Amino acid sequence: MKKIITVSRQFGSGGRSIARRIAEELGYDYYDSELTNKVAEETGFDPSYIADAGEYAPGRSILSYALSNPSPHSTGRHMNAADYLWATQSRIITELAEKGNCVIVGRCADYILRDRKDCLNVFIHADDAYRAKRIVDLYGVRDKSPQKRLEEKDAKRSVNYKYFTGREWGKTENYHIALDSSVLGSETCVKIITEIAKETES
Amino acid sequence: MKKIITVSRQFGSGGRSIARRIAEELGYDYYDSELTNKVAEETGFDPSYIADAGEYAPGRSILSYALSNPSPHSTGRHMNAADYLWATQSRIITELAEKGNCVIVGRCADYILRDRKDCLNVFIHADDAYRAKRIVDLYGVRDKSPQKRLEEKDAKRSVNYKYFTGREWGKTENYHIALDSSVLGSETCVKIITEIAKETES
Repeated sequence: MKKIITVSRQFGSGGRSIARRIAEELGYDYYDSELTNKVAEETGFDPSYIADAGEYAPGRSILSYALSNPSPHSTGRHMNAADYLWATQSRIITELAEKGNCVIVGRCADYILRDRKDCLNVFIHADDAYRAKRIVDLYGVRDKSPQKRLEEKDAKRSVNYKYFTGREWGKTENYHIALDSSVLGSETCVKIITEIAKETES
Repeated sequence: MKKIITVSRQFGSGGRSIARRIAEELGYDYYDSELTNKVAEETGFDPSYIADAGEYAPGRSILSYALSNPSPHSTGRHMNAADYLWATQSRIITELAEKGNCVIVGRCADYILRDRKDCLNVFIHADDAYRAKRIVDLYGVRDKSPQKRLEEKDAKRSVNYKYFTGREWGKTENYHIALDSSVLGSETCVKIITEIAKETES
């Protein structure tokens, strides 16, 4: 039985909904925006800023940031606002994982909890057509095309993950299970993951 | 019900054994070295050359080859021995898939059959310690360290896949399911994949 399920996901893949359903099925706590708010409270940052920063890092664009700042994996630099947020986020995720069985969405939780043996790390992705339809259904039409919105979100998550973890986002080897929700269907994804969580030794 | 299961795998992950077990469970044909021999017969190449070429491309090292030759995705170049092998391999895999339900290991079958809706594309990976132990158990000790053997094989498969498909090997989005056999165990992998193959619509 795995006690912690971390769920990373492509934007529009339905990974967040799948994560919530897994938590329901297993009777686990579920952390997502709650986590954001908790970080916001503790650090004194504004919650809407944190919601962004969880994916995009500091105040300006993550791309310009990542290009102009050495990664935390480099040495010889001072802690900035993004690092402070990261340190706080890491501590909170570690504490939540110790508190009890839970499902944690995003926030590099797979990396933060990498030394625990009781984590199941999941990645949910889907093809572009499925994701484009889903974000328009959920969030409505915007000036930018759905394709553009997907590309931007993916690029941001990828750069953020690389910046903080030194790893490639969406590489199979970072996850124990990666599933295509557009081919398998959300409910099949929920079923597979809950079964594996129950059957796999910690 | 998915009629074709393609299995790509990291060296030493046990992906080939998992593929064979899936074929047994589903009562599907299984293609691996048989496929190699069939290509060899048809092209007149020596079978041992083909076994290598399936992963490493032409006579000299794939790395030097890939660096000095434009990919088939470029235009304006003539067909060479590797391309001829690729064309033959593509045709044979397409024909085998049309012949009946089967499991196909490696050989970029996921890419070659990408337009079929009845394929389930699987990737099996495992952590380095598990793979290193497994290759020593299976193939014995060599002059090169197990770690070095893993790195070289992975690099070759990755370059080969990129050369012929234009895609990144081991990226989650190329597969419907990616599983870590070192954490989940081989039999759990077999079970998950056979269940999904049965339950997913073509």
